[in-house]
Amino acid sequence: MSNVIDSSPWTATVLTLFPEAFAGVLDTSVIGTAKKNHIWALETVDIRKFADNRRRNVDGTPAGGGPGMVLRADIAARAVDSVIDDHRPLIYLTPRGMPLTQKRVSELAAGQGAVLVCGRFEGLDQRVIDARQMEEISIGDFVLAGGEVAAQALIEACVRLLPGVLGATESTAEESFENGLLEYPLYTQPREWEGRRIPEVLLVGNHGRVADWRRARQIEITKSRRPELYEAWLANGGDHECD
Amino acid sequence: MSNVIDSSPWTATVLTLFPEAFAGVLDTSVIGTAKKNHIWALETVDIRKFADNRRRNVDGTPAGGGPGMVLRADIAARAVDSVIDDHRPLIYLTPRGMPLTQKRVSELAAGQGAVLVCGRFEGLDQRVIDARQMEEISIGDFVLAGGEVAAQALIEACVRLLPGVLGATESTAEESFENGLLEYPLYTQPREWEGRRIPEVLLVGNHGRVADWRRARQIEITKSRRPELYEAWLANGGDHECD
Repeated sequence: MSNVIDSSPWTATVLTLFPEAFAGVLDTSVIGTAKKNHIWALETVDIRKFADNRRRNVDGTPAGGGPGMVLRADIAARAVDSVIDDHRPLIYLTPRGMPLTQKRVSELAAGQGAVLVCGRFEGLDQRVIDARQMEEISIGDFVLAGGEVAAQALIEACVRLLPGVLGATESTAEESFENGLLEYPLYTQPREWEGRRIPEVLLVGNHGRVADWRRARQIEITKSRRPELYEAWLANGGDHECD
Repeated sequence: MSNVIDSSPWTATVLTLFPEAFAGVLDTSVIGTAKKNHIWALETVDIRKFADNRRRNVDGTPAGGGPGMVLRADIAARAVDSVIDDHRPLIYLTPRGMPLTQKRVSELAAGQGAVLVCGRFEGLDQRVIDARQMEEISIGDFVLAGGEVAAQALIEACVRLLPGVLGATESTAEESFENGLLEYPLYTQPREWEGRRIPEVLLVGNHGRVADWRRARQIEITKSRRPELYEAWLANGGDHECD
């Protein structure tokens, strides 16, 4: 890798049929400010530009029949191959993929960026997924109209972990998933609102008791809402890992 | 419920500090066309307008200490209470929530819409979540800078299921999660690409064999990538449920 690549910002290159979908959330708030400050960069590649026919068709009917249309392997491959190989992971966003985790987000944020392929129609021809060895990632067990929102979620999750994106008063150390548990409940002023008071333990200034109370709430909420995460946390040593 | 409400389109009302984040993906492709055609409607409510102080502050430091800022209960409640109660579910998007599933998406799409609260900073004061009985939903086990992308994912997943949004040639019946399995691999023209051929079974026109092959691939990929989904599918009767 050259010095040029090493000094480039973290870059998301998105292959999509709808580049215009990438206005909006990635230009907003801390993520948008970080983009303006060149902490990260966004490139969009319009897959339709790689169609080799006059009508710019990029899809065909599914072999074997069935509903909808399939994005062609040859056209998708030309779009992928147009992106300079700089060792960034090539990711296809699809509900068939492995679920995105905060661990994978952290790994991606520590790298140079990602090349993201957004499907539309029924999906992408399997041969280009195989031939270009795409990593298939899903953001959740539901179906979208295309991979664009999923790509934006992945990018936002990565960018907020880049150095300089979150302010000095913010932190990623105590949030959900960082220690295998969901986050504790939060409270701020006023002390009393609609007859509901902030729990007393949070007001008396005993840091040890605050930490114990928060950890107990984390365990409680994870066990009740996400028993599979709780079991994994226990299997990893539970509290002994973190204390 | 009045006739007026019954004849309104499916409506997503989003409470956010960043209404400008809602340009982009929801104005794109089939989702954008459906919005233009009044099959669904998007309303954004700027939470900051409900701040009652001169500097429009909406947040405070966490009671008990810790990093970041917390969105105040009183201000969030005023924003929520400004939305006309028409029996739409009130949803707070947070990684502490229950994972969004295609089943919940289908239920929401069958209703009148949803009122979605997007957190920013560390999160929302727990008292307003409790007092307004918000349904907490997570789109995945990763952390975003705010709930806006998650809201867009939920809205897009719902809107594509509304009648008239997907074309007649498209379908939601054979896709991932609809039968508890991930989707089968897809192929389209050309028959051979980079030496890779479309599987022969998909080319000979035997619909029964195509269906068997696809089902076998669905089971195979679900078992290998998502053993927990595969086990749930088996527990629900496996193939006997669908045949």
